[in-house]
Amino acid sequence: MAQGDRQIVFAFGQRTDGDATMRALLGGKGANLAEMARIGLPVPPGFTISTDVCGWYYDHDGGYPPGFDDLLRAHLVAIEEQQGKRFGDPDDPLLVSVRSGARESMPGMMDTILNLGLNDDTVEGLAARTGDHRFAYDCYRRFIQMYGNVVLGVRAESEARGDPFEARLDALKRETDGGRDADLELEQLAELVGRYKAIVLKHTGTRFPQDVDEQLRRAIGAVFGSWSNERAVLYRQRYGIPRSPGTAVNIQAMVFGNRGSDSATGVAFTRDPATGENVMYGEYLENAQGEDVVSGIRTPRPIAELAADMPETYHELESVRGKLERHFRDMQDFEFTIENGRLYLLQTRNAKRTGLAAVRIAVEMNRERLIDRASALRLIPAESIGSLLAPTFDTDAIADAAEVARGLPAGPGAASGRVVFTSQQAADWAARSERVILCRTETSPEDLKGMLAAQGILTSRGGVSSHAALVARQLGKVCVCGTAGVAFDYARGTLTAGGVVLREGDAISLDGSTGAVYPGEIATTPSEVQRVLDGDMKPEDSLWYGYYQTVMGWSDLYRRIKVRTNADTPEMATDAIRYGAEGIGLCRTEHMFFEGERIHVMRRMILAAGETERRAALDSLLPYQRADFTSLFRTMAGRPVTIRLLDPPLHEFLPAAPRARRALAAKFGLSESEVEERIHNLTEVNPMLGCRGCRLGILYPEITEMQARAIFEAAVDASAGGYGVPVQPEIMVPLVGFREELADQAAIVRRVADDVMNKRGVGLDYQVGTMIEVPRAALVADEIAAEAEFFSFGTNDLTQMALGLSRDDMNSFYESYMHKEIYSVDPFVRIDERGVGRLIHEAVRLGRASRRDLKIGICGEHGGDPASIEFCQAVGLDYVSCSPPRVPVARLAAAQAALGPG
Amino acid sequence: MAQGDRQIVFAFGQRTDGDATMRALLGGKGANLAEMARIGLPVPPGFTISTDVCGWYYDHDGGYPPGFDDLLRAHLVAIEEQQGKRFGDPDDPLLVSVRSGARESMPGMMDTILNLGLNDDTVEGLAARTGDHRFAYDCYRRFIQMYGNVVLGVRAESEARGDPFEARLDALKRETDGGRDADLELEQLAELVGRYKAIVLKHTGTRFPQDVDEQLRRAIGAVFGSWSNERAVLYRQRYGIPRSPGTAVNIQAMVFGNRGSDSATGVAFTRDPATGENVMYGEYLENAQGEDVVSGIRTPRPIAELAADMPETYHELESVRGKLERHFRDMQDFEFTIENGRLYLLQTRNAKRTGLAAVRIAVEMNRERLIDRASALRLIPAESIGSLLAPTFDTDAIADAAEVARGLPAGPGAASGRVVFTSQQAADWAARSERVILCRTETSPEDLKGMLAAQGILTSRGGVSSHAALVARQLGKVCVCGTAGVAFDYARGTLTAGGVVLREGDAISLDGSTGAVYPGEIATTPSEVQRVLDGDMKPEDSLWYGYYQTVMGWSDLYRRIKVRTNADTPEMATDAIRYGAEGIGLCRTEHMFFEGERIHVMRRMILAAGETERRAALDSLLPYQRADFTSLFRTMAGRPVTIRLLDPPLHEFLPAAPRARRALAAKFGLSESEVEERIHNLTEVNPMLGCRGCRLGILYPEITEMQARAIFEAAVDASAGGYGVPVQPEIMVPLVGFREELADQAAIVRRVADDVMNKRGVGLDYQVGTMIEVPRAALVADEIAAEAEFFSFGTNDLTQMALGLSRDDMNSFYESYMHKEIYSVDPFVRIDERGVGRLIHEAVRLGRASRRDLKIGICGEHGGDPASIEFCQAVGLDYVSCSPPRVPVARLAAAQAALGPG
Repeated sequence: MAQGDRQIVFAFGQRTDGDATMRALLGGKGANLAEMARIGLPVPPGFTISTDVCGWYYDHDGGYPPGFDDLLRAHLVAIEEQQGKRFGDPDDPLLVSVRSGARESMPGMMDTILNLGLNDDTVEGLAARTGDHRFAYDCYRRFIQMYGNVVLGVRAESEARGDPFEARLDALKRETDGGRDADLELEQLAELVGRYKAIVLKHTGTRFPQDVDEQLRRAIGAVFGSWSNERAVLYRQRYGIPRSPGTAVNIQAMVFGNRGSDSATGVAFTRDPATGENVMYGEYLENAQGEDVVSGIRTPRPIAELAADMPETYHELESVRGKLERHFRDMQDFEFTIENGRLYLLQTRNAKRTGLAAVRIAVEMNRERLIDRASALRLIPAESIGSLLAPTFDTDAIADAAEVARGLPAGPGAASGRVVFTSQQAADWAARSERVILCRTETSPEDLKGMLAAQGILTSRGGVSSHAALVARQLGKVCVCGTAGVAFDYARGTLTAGGVVLREGDAISLDGSTGAVYPGEIATTPSEVQRVLDGDMKPEDSLWYGYYQTVMGWSDLYRRIKVRTNADTPEMATDAIRYGAEGIGLCRTEHMFFEGERIHVMRRMILAAGETERRAALDSLLPYQRADFTSLFRTMAGRPVTIRLLDPPLHEFLPAAPRARRALAAKFGLSESEVEERIHNLTEVNPMLGCRGCRLGILYPEITEMQARAIFEAAVDASAGGYGVPVQPEIMVPLVGFREELADQAAIVRRVADDVMNKRGVGLDYQVGTMIEVPRAALVADEIAAEAEFFSFGTNDLTQMALGLSRDDMNSFYESYMHKEIYSVDPFVRIDERGVGRLIHEAVRLGRASRRDLKIGICGEHGGDPASIEFCQAVGLDYVSCSPPRVPVARLAAAQAALGPG
Repeated sequence: MAQGDRQIVFAFGQRTDGDATMRALLGGKGANLAEMARIGLPVPPGFTISTDVCGWYYDHDGGYPPGFDDLLRAHLVAIEEQQGKRFGDPDDPLLVSVRSGARESMPGMMDTILNLGLNDDTVEGLAARTGDHRFAYDCYRRFIQMYGNVVLGVRAESEARGDPFEARLDALKRETDGGRDADLELEQLAELVGRYKAIVLKHTGTRFPQDVDEQLRRAIGAVFGSWSNERAVLYRQRYGIPRSPGTAVNIQAMVFGNRGSDSATGVAFTRDPATGENVMYGEYLENAQGEDVVSGIRTPRPIAELAADMPETYHELESVRGKLERHFRDMQDFEFTIENGRLYLLQTRNAKRTGLAAVRIAVEMNRERLIDRASALRLIPAESIGSLLAPTFDTDAIADAAEVARGLPAGPGAASGRVVFTSQQAADWAARSERVILCRTETSPEDLKGMLAAQGILTSRGGVSSHAALVARQLGKVCVCGTAGVAFDYARGTLTAGGVVLREGDAISLDGSTGAVYPGEIATTPSEVQRVLDGDMKPEDSLWYGYYQTVMGWSDLYRRIKVRTNADTPEMATDAIRYGAEGIGLCRTEHMFFEGERIHVMRRMILAAGETERRAALDSLLPYQRADFTSLFRTMAGRPVTIRLLDPPLHEFLPAAPRARRALAAKFGLSESEVEERIHNLTEVNPMLGCRGCRLGILYPEITEMQARAIFEAAVDASAGGYGVPVQPEIMVPLVGFREELADQAAIVRRVADDVMNKRGVGLDYQVGTMIEVPRAALVADEIAAEAEFFSFGTNDLTQMALGLSRDDMNSFYESYMHKEIYSVDPFVRIDERGVGRLIHEAVRLGRASRRDLKIGICGEHGGDPASIEFCQAVGLDYVSCSPPRVPVARLAAAQAALGPG
């Protein structure tokens, strides 16, 4: 056998060999079929050929393990016995379906062949037995088409001509009254079968196989073969799914939803996947086979109508719904067929759902005692929590809106704004205080500025893990992606959706929670949860706030890693505290120098002729900084606040335009050439690797002195004068690579701290630490920890340096890199665990070896990415820090990281 | 005792406790005194207080171990017994010298106190016993001055006033006929002693100590205290000398070279330190004490004259010379004193010598069977070999030249050129085909361009490990540094040396082998060795070529690491082979695109509208590249050649000046705005981290294809057509950070190789590998080695990225960083072992774990630095690659690394 004496074919039905734990061997579909059979749900009998056989198939050049044929025969006989029919029997043929089923759901593989076992003889037997010739030939033509396409490889000869089977069917329907499949007469179906066989002969050079064993054998081979077709390989690479263990094959007795008006086929969800409400949700088609529901040729009916049509079956379905949830402990998405009034289940799997639904279902399932809290938390994708906080469309306004396209809901919330096609357009409109929606086929790192300026992002390509989706969620932007119904014409500057043509500046609205796209402006309203957090609604009036609070409460119960926020202003800090931030992980002081008069003083400092002049300018900046910090410390009310000393290259504070430079010269009484020379001296070839971070403070110690003084005086002010909050400033020195750099800056900070404490006669609790953002710092973290009381990973710059990759310059090759799968995901969105992650791991190990109580966090943008949070907890960080709106996501993600996969 | 029962005071003389192996405990001076005593050389008796006592002194706040006083007394008694005098005896006093002596020679510490034990009483006893009152008072005034300066801390009150003792002495001498020390009468000396004691009283508030035990005790404390004075600390930091084990103190019976005309003091070398010739070399002063020789007040006489003055003593000295060399197995630099015709040795140490001398001495000592080959190699600083290759001044021309200053010989060879003060001036003059000498107070990384353009570098500050010295040697430039006799006035644009004022454009000449500076142009001539290598001289006619060949031969015998060269042209390759290069470690292909017509084709390629146009331009470049490679392969005659694929950002190939851009547009029939737009698109914020290296080849696979084709077609051409050399091309993909990048490029290279081999019907032996220059590549070296047949560390870029440090932008803070000792040496000159070294170590470990036979080398500029070569061998690299003139240095350094410290 494939692997020693391991079982390679598993029955389900009267006897069931497998169960849900055997996903690797049976695939998801096969494992769940076995499980359903075990718990007594009506599953047509069948068997699963394990993934081991797939492995053997590839290892042996398309061969099968010894004895496989006998096993196949034996399992077929078991089905025959249960169904009372024989495979290939011209009088009463057993028909089967053949479906692939890998461990993970895998688009791109061969999916399903129905009605296998039909040939020119058995079709007559089926007709005779069922007394329905039309039904029998309908099955036969469906079979030849499916088999022709997926097993025999009959394809369109050119894109223009389309699938030859479809073309023939369409032609026939055009000749027919009504023009629908169901309107075809028996004679027409019989003729179609003949035509189809001719198409097969023409395309393959051989007759359509009449031997049912050959049909089965080749169908199995086609499933295995499809495991390594291009689309499947691409999908696996993209989603990091390993090639092993391969796919299983499920062979199952056919049941027929196309046997008349007491037959039907449908799909159902055990709860409402949009709202999470605990009601059955789904749709069905009378007198149809599975593929009719998805093909869209006939419009399925809501499942609720089945209650009137077939009350008993509906009742039975309701009972199945409960049984499935009680058994699988998750909302299910299942397929069923009703054959002459009898219900069969063909598949079940965990259902996809909106973010809102995910939260509600998890909380309610826990309330219904279906799952414990840990399981409930695991059921909620961390990003979902954002759906509860994001604004929604005003109920009245949305009622009148006409949806023109629907994409994937990739960044929750509702947004309206003007259509823009480029970052430049986005910036231009935003500069005029207009809200904008960035619309592109797909986004790349170059679009970051446009995304920052926009309220929402719409793309026509890419899934929920595409660049647009990941970055939008990171930035808290509404996003609808992969919207195939939207067509771009960049040359003309238009996008077209549902027949509506929109140009730059036209209004458009996106619902990032459903994926709906609307032309025109639609008023938005804050979510219930946001209104409660803002104090505009009472908690007890909001169902959703209850869910939110429950999930956040559980999260805080389980998570081991703290969640801080990156906030530069008291306003951001206030928001973050409402979202549950436990401190500030990164306060960037440079932002404080751009406001109002300060930028002039800052420029005076930069253009100073020497230390005396520079100190004078710094003295003028001190009161501003001190006031900023005082206000921030009061807002944070005793929570730790990490303040990074001045970081960016000084030229960033100087104007770029020649006119502004001339004005600057005039203002400071300098000659233009003096200003030009100073700016020229500050110009760098690679500013990222130039004079910035602690290099500034080492070159101009007076800058560090001023900032330290502002921090400590503010700390005294905030903790005195009736406010009396304890203040925990953590002074963070940026861009450290050498222990000596930190020692130099820390000495200045500590000296100023002593001076302030002496003068003010108070003690202060503070720490001095460093960003770990230069690769060398990670490599010598033991040395650096001797000077540092905390580390904070600046993963943005650490990624730039470790990968030799400037975020500002990667656009030229980014698409090539994604296309060639060199990057599986933008390394600035998710931590590159193999490379950057290794540096982080080493820095934690070395740092703690040198200082056992070293506090370690992360303040790069990765701090809000759930996968990266999982990594951060795995390497033992104490906290993550992210933008305020990401805090709830991070709290949940941290809990999930702590709980593990369960 | 200091450490358990460890001995802490060690006698030498009749009984000798220590030996030369005990340098850590006894210091260099003490260990060698003991050793000399052991082998029967005439050393005045004494003892050494070990470095353990220094440790105790610092650990116990200036205290001494229990029992120390008794030990001190006992050892003094031992000297007293040997000398037949007693310490402090008013009738016949024993006088001693007190000297510091650390393991490493340590400028900045207290050095020597002579004549200790004199006071107002003993001076009379000394006078009576010797019958020479003048001698006794001369000793006493010397003692008070030395003791006053170094133990009592009597200093100049201001810089203008000078040392108060010297001032008094000078005043007295002005009143005296002759005006020399020796012209002072007894009365004057006695008066001087009185004045000196008054100076001590005034400066210290207490009398000059009359208690000889107190004198000794405080002198010992002063030696220990000087171990942590500022200059000593700075020196240790700069040269990486650990604080532990501290200094020892040597106390030794005085012998007197100032006892009259049959007395003398002197220093001698066992060989000529300039030429290495095996003759005694040195100088002496009659009737003088040690400090007179170095003070320069009297002019010492050449040692050869001693043969006439004191033939017996001279003979004895010759015998000492032989004994010292036979014993220490190295050239010695020793101090001696002759007291009334009797010879004493006071110190010996390994002598400093020129590069030429180092080579000659090592080879001759081996021929004389004094040392084995390994020891001989260890005796030659690797840089010395450069002295044999560097040009020298023409013998006739130099005879007329007037030396105006002398600095440290820091980059061997002779150079003449025009004085320039800045990189810009250097570039401007060099552009007019003028040879230039860059003259600066000191250099920094900003001066690199100027240094590259110059023939030689002159600085007024900094030692032989200064930036100027290290970079000059790396670049093979003549360098004289730390030339205190040269004064710069940048404002006026002058340098002044020996009264001669030179301006930009004036001629100047440097002898980097001696440190001499001459105004004016002096003709240079290639060295003998270079003439032999160039075929302009017969090997047997050159003594120096013999030494060179011997050393190189031995080096190749011992070294384990191969030495390749970085060469882009057949000319460079030819030179490198003459210097012994075993292959090319880095051939940069981009240089090939700048010549003549090629740059236009290159620009056409860069400005191409699409792939078709780009391919057309590449097709035009192919023949050029192929011809270049063919020629290179033929030159290398079967040695391996590593060729790096196109690396720099494309904008580097485009002109910067607007006029040149307009010309470009016209030439290619493009609009100016099209050219501007293309250039604008290529402009990057951080080009170092942008679209370069393999990113170019991934974006434009056709570039890689063209280069691979040129390489393989050239390999076929070079190995066929009568040339018949086997060719070993190694294709190196730059800037790889992800395995997938290398896989992508390697696939193209291998496909092209197959195509060329098929078409030409030949097999080719080639390898595909990568630069390791992105930190991530080192971190995932196991993955990358799965695709790479070799690694080559590009340590320039690896340093830039790992340290977050742009070499082009570090100048603004470099001086601050050196001054604050954050960098101990420019990390682009010597591998930063703690940081970058760790990445290299990991990459080697991971790479070999994944591919056992992975070939690994280094091609960054560090490949020619001896300390870095030692590191490269330690981490297990297969080869280093350096510029052609560094090849001999690297061969020797590699041998030394293999031999270890011995």
